[in-house]
Amino acid sequence: MNQYIKADPWRIIEEGFSAENQRSSESLFSLGNGKMGQRANFEERYTGKTLQGSYIAGIYYPDKTRVGWWKNGYPEYFAKVLNSPNYIGIDVVVDTHMLNLFICNVRAFRRELNMKEGYLLRTFEAELPDGKIVRVVAKRLLSIVDTECAAISYSIEAVNFSGTISLLPYIDGGVVNQDSNYDEAFWNVLKMDVHSCEATLLAQTKKLDFQVAFSMRTKVFVDGVFCSDIRPELMKKEAWVGNRMKVNVKQGQILTLEKYIGVCSSLNYSAETLCAESLKQAKKAEEKGIEKMLTEQAAAWGNKWKQSDIQIEGDVAAQQAIRFNIFQLNQTYTGEDARLNVGPKGFTGEKYGGTTYWDTEAYCIPFFLMTAPKDVTRQLLIYRYKHLERAIENAAKLGFSDGAALYPMVTINGEECHNEWEITFEEIHRNGAIAFAIHNYIRHTLDYNYLDQYGLEVLIGIARFWAQRITFSTEKQKYVMLGVTGPNEYENNVNNNWYTSRLACWCMSYANECISMVKSNTPAAWSRIKSKVNFDEEHEPAKWRTIVDNMYYPRNEELGIFLQQDGYMDKEQTLVADLPYSQRPINQHWSWDRILRSCFIKQADTLQGIYLFEN
Amino acid sequence: MNQYIKADPWRIIEEGFSAENQRSSESLFSLGNGKMGQRANFEERYTGKTLQGSYIAGIYYPDKTRVGWWKNGYPEYFAKVLNSPNYIGIDVVVDTHMLNLFICNVRAFRRELNMKEGYLLRTFEAELPDGKIVRVVAKRLLSIVDTECAAISYSIEAVNFSGTISLLPYIDGGVVNQDSNYDEAFWNVLKMDVHSCEATLLAQTKKLDFQVAFSMRTKVFVDGVFCSDIRPELMKKEAWVGNRMKVNVKQGQILTLEKYIGVCSSLNYSAETLCAESLKQAKKAEEKGIEKMLTEQAAAWGNKWKQSDIQIEGDVAAQQAIRFNIFQLNQTYTGEDARLNVGPKGFTGEKYGGTTYWDTEAYCIPFFLMTAPKDVTRQLLIYRYKHLERAIENAAKLGFSDGAALYPMVTINGEECHNEWEITFEEIHRNGAIAFAIHNYIRHTLDYNYLDQYGLEVLIGIARFWAQRITFSTEKQKYVMLGVTGPNEYENNVNNNWYTSRLACWCMSYANECISMVKSNTPAAWSRIKSKVNFDEEHEPAKWRTIVDNMYYPRNEELGIFLQQDGYMDKEQTLVADLPYSQRPINQHWSWDRILRSCFIKQADTLQGIYLFEN
Repeated sequence: MNQYIKADPWRIIEEGFSAENQRSSESLFSLGNGKMGQRANFEERYTGKTLQGSYIAGIYYPDKTRVGWWKNGYPEYFAKVLNSPNYIGIDVVVDTHMLNLFICNVRAFRRELNMKEGYLLRTFEAELPDGKIVRVVAKRLLSIVDTECAAISYSIEAVNFSGTISLLPYIDGGVVNQDSNYDEAFWNVLKMDVHSCEATLLAQTKKLDFQVAFSMRTKVFVDGVFCSDIRPELMKKEAWVGNRMKVNVKQGQILTLEKYIGVCSSLNYSAETLCAESLKQAKKAEEKGIEKMLTEQAAAWGNKWKQSDIQIEGDVAAQQAIRFNIFQLNQTYTGEDARLNVGPKGFTGEKYGGTTYWDTEAYCIPFFLMTAPKDVTRQLLIYRYKHLERAIENAAKLGFSDGAALYPMVTINGEECHNEWEITFEEIHRNGAIAFAIHNYIRHTLDYNYLDQYGLEVLIGIARFWAQRITFSTEKQKYVMLGVTGPNEYENNVNNNWYTSRLACWCMSYANECISMVKSNTPAAWSRIKSKVNFDEEHEPAKWRTIVDNMYYPRNEELGIFLQQDGYMDKEQTLVADLPYSQRPINQHWSWDRILRSCFIKQADTLQGIYLFEN
Repeated sequence: MNQYIKADPWRIIEEGFSAENQRSSESLFSLGNGKMGQRANFEERYTGKTLQGSYIAGIYYPDKTRVGWWKNGYPEYFAKVLNSPNYIGIDVVVDTHMLNLFICNVRAFRRELNMKEGYLLRTFEAELPDGKIVRVVAKRLLSIVDTECAAISYSIEAVNFSGTISLLPYIDGGVVNQDSNYDEAFWNVLKMDVHSCEATLLAQTKKLDFQVAFSMRTKVFVDGVFCSDIRPELMKKEAWVGNRMKVNVKQGQILTLEKYIGVCSSLNYSAETLCAESLKQAKKAEEKGIEKMLTEQAAAWGNKWKQSDIQIEGDVAAQQAIRFNIFQLNQTYTGEDARLNVGPKGFTGEKYGGTTYWDTEAYCIPFFLMTAPKDVTRQLLIYRYKHLERAIENAAKLGFSDGAALYPMVTINGEECHNEWEITFEEIHRNGAIAFAIHNYIRHTLDYNYLDQYGLEVLIGIARFWAQRITFSTEKQKYVMLGVTGPNEYENNVNNNWYTSRLACWCMSYANECISMVKSNTPAAWSRIKSKVNFDEEHEPAKWRTIVDNMYYPRNEELGIFLQQDGYMDKEQTLVADLPYSQRPINQHWSWDRILRSCFIKQADTLQGIYLFEN
């Protein structure tokens, strides 16, 4: 955890307001419910450094690529999950001054992400430029029970004055992505409706025609008593709708706004019904009320924790950190929708575009296998199964044929989005991770049926890719794999990376093994698959075996070690102890070429990053 | 030459107007005089596809870099020669219709770049939407005699009508670069003056404070008779000044506008005097008159051709092509100013940013050595000498020390501007090209004095770089060079590229040789240089010799060949004859990784791209 975060077993806590930490805290305190997520932006206006961010899973934009030297096979676009209309906003004006923590004198600021119960709480006291002091308590949740609903309770106490407080809850469609390649806006606003204590905004992505409706319902209370006589000013601006309510408060009184939000997308509804559906969701939340929503949320998170908690005793910071990871993974992905996946940064920001990487198979699937019902992992596998055709197309763009599949480095819909040649074309071990995840799932769940239905087709496509990507060296009289980037992304375009070659051979062996298994256990399934993928039973398995049996792996016989790649022993070997601290981490101090010319060893007689021979 | 260009020994000729070829023709018919250059844009308004381009050598902008994955050592900016204010513009309105070839019916269009005499001529007949026909003859030059002057003669004949023709010569500072990374405008306009038949505009680059003043003087003639009674409307808009003149013409009359331009920059004048100086140049041109300017231009080009012409008999297209190359090189660089260099595209467009590449040393210097006074090449060498400190800084950014110099891949002021790791950090043979150019110059001119004054310091900096970049392989017990991109830019991050390693060793040997030479011939010079570069006479030359004597070169003993790089023999060897025509050229059909996994051989027993052993 970042140093300014207070240790606590169940909560992420920030005490004291820091404009400098704001963007970092917005990420750390993010909320999500699998279907949507948002950064911990303030509800009220904030003019300091901030990244406004709200995301709807699966709603993306194909942002036109910008590269220096265009290379054949690069994708035309990078699909990114979009910053979506802001539905948490509430402008607050006290008499004539806008509440804005960047300008006010802030005291007793505290932010808490309650991971046990799944909500965000913020309290502070702010002194406005005219000396008036307000005390604010803001609590919000994205419901994991009603996954199209969010709710906010925003209370303001008039500490040292009597006066007028204006509250302006709104929905703002005029949002942009900071990472837009051409500074374009990605949304059109199609429709806006505003009524008393209610507003709806329908937005459409400028490409692909995704549509999302956002509705809000609001309620105002003074000292806990519902103000039934509020007549808000109905406001509509460009791509923006809101309700302005002015309330006279006496010193010591507490004014509370409850904002209930419904969010519905064209992923789940026909476009014509979206506005009505989102309003229905907002009303459902309103009727339930935030207290009941919080109670249900706590219970639902309680169930999740029962399955997935890891307890660490005697180290509160470690306990907090592991729960933070578990909470983030469970906030980001729930396994309810096979069209979705796990973006590397979850719903915490724009970096990595909310897209799918092999990180899902390598790091997330082992977690979900151990902590969630097996269907959660199964959905992640089916996501890749559904992209098999696209993976075959991706491989074809790079010159492969006959059903060879290369899964993309970065994707939302199955098409490759990455555009750095050393990764797009060369960091291909990702393909093996996808095969290995199938293996991992089956050995964990014993769901062999998955192979018949989905898994084997994927395994065959991947094995076919490796069989074509690996070539025969007449000089070595062995099979070699040239021009790859291994998991060590600092060494590009190397030959015979041990990890990649080994994984490729494992994939071909495993595919052969699974073919035999399906063939003998469920011959009808095999017959269907064989015909579907046009499998050459006579030659393909034999070819794969030949490669596996004759694969070249770089090794140093004298030292009895495998080498990371060809030529590894030519590097300058430096003792870690001889590397000054001022130059660590080297990726922040050394140029790319210098990193890859060196290898660091812990002791003079061992080589780090090199695999010992298997027994 | 592009297929639509008519073959001619001395001229580039386009006949018939084609909007499709317009951008291509604008490049092909470009004019330059070493100090400035411009694309063959039309003087009159044109709303078809066009790239407006006018460039002042040495006036550049540090455009902030945009990359995907930022790597340590990347430059902050890409310096580019800017599109500068447009001074050729003349809006023409016939009664109520704007002359615009994209809209008019165009007949008898002909464009000619006269390379022998150095001018651009364009003739056409245009029918306006109301049926009026004008016949236009437009001739212009950038003077190589008065290098801050340009002149245009623009004649319009009223073919089938009597009426009013409005001429509006202007200077437009509202220009942008198409290749701007952030769509910014790069110029501020500081000052505009407009008087009768005269205007001046002073522009300043938004960064670095380069200033350039553009002045125009105009004269109007009817049937060759000067119209002394013209009273133009003086016009000033945002970043734009012009003179509008309306002239009544009778059918058959010819209206001629002469526009004389002066362009002066803060590279050569103090900022306060720029406007006055540019106006002085415009007046000088006006007094001389375009006919005399053309005569002087023809004579000056005649002198250039005397030195640099290459005659090819029996093949007009080849004759035209070689003269086009000679003309372009002489238009782009004259050797008068050691701050300037040769952009890969000359003054023909924005591609490559008008910056300096190793192409200058590798391709241009051999040309200038054979066709121009030796001082022209000397200036190009001095350009690099003046950047030696920056080259040492560039190397330091990548971790080199003690006076090691790495010349940049792309530069204007000596700082590296390139930002693709496989080139910026790895295509380092460029450094050798700069040393080799010194060798080339000296062996051609016998100007050994150059070594004492400038050359040796550069050679030492470069040799020092190689001595650090080359490392010792304990496995091979030889010196190796890891992680380079050779001149074959499709194979990145290879080890022991034969060309680069050989060139590096040549540089170290040559530096040693030159040190001995200077030491024995001009000991005082050596003593000065030695102290200036803090040379360790005891260890450095010996270290270089040790490396040269123990350098590893990849070779295949069996075949008796040097290999392009380590592992080359592992590639799939394909007969050129087996590569379908549909897949050629492979860089347009194959992905990067596929290209580098293959090598093509002409016959089954030879290997292309591999060097035969030296005898």
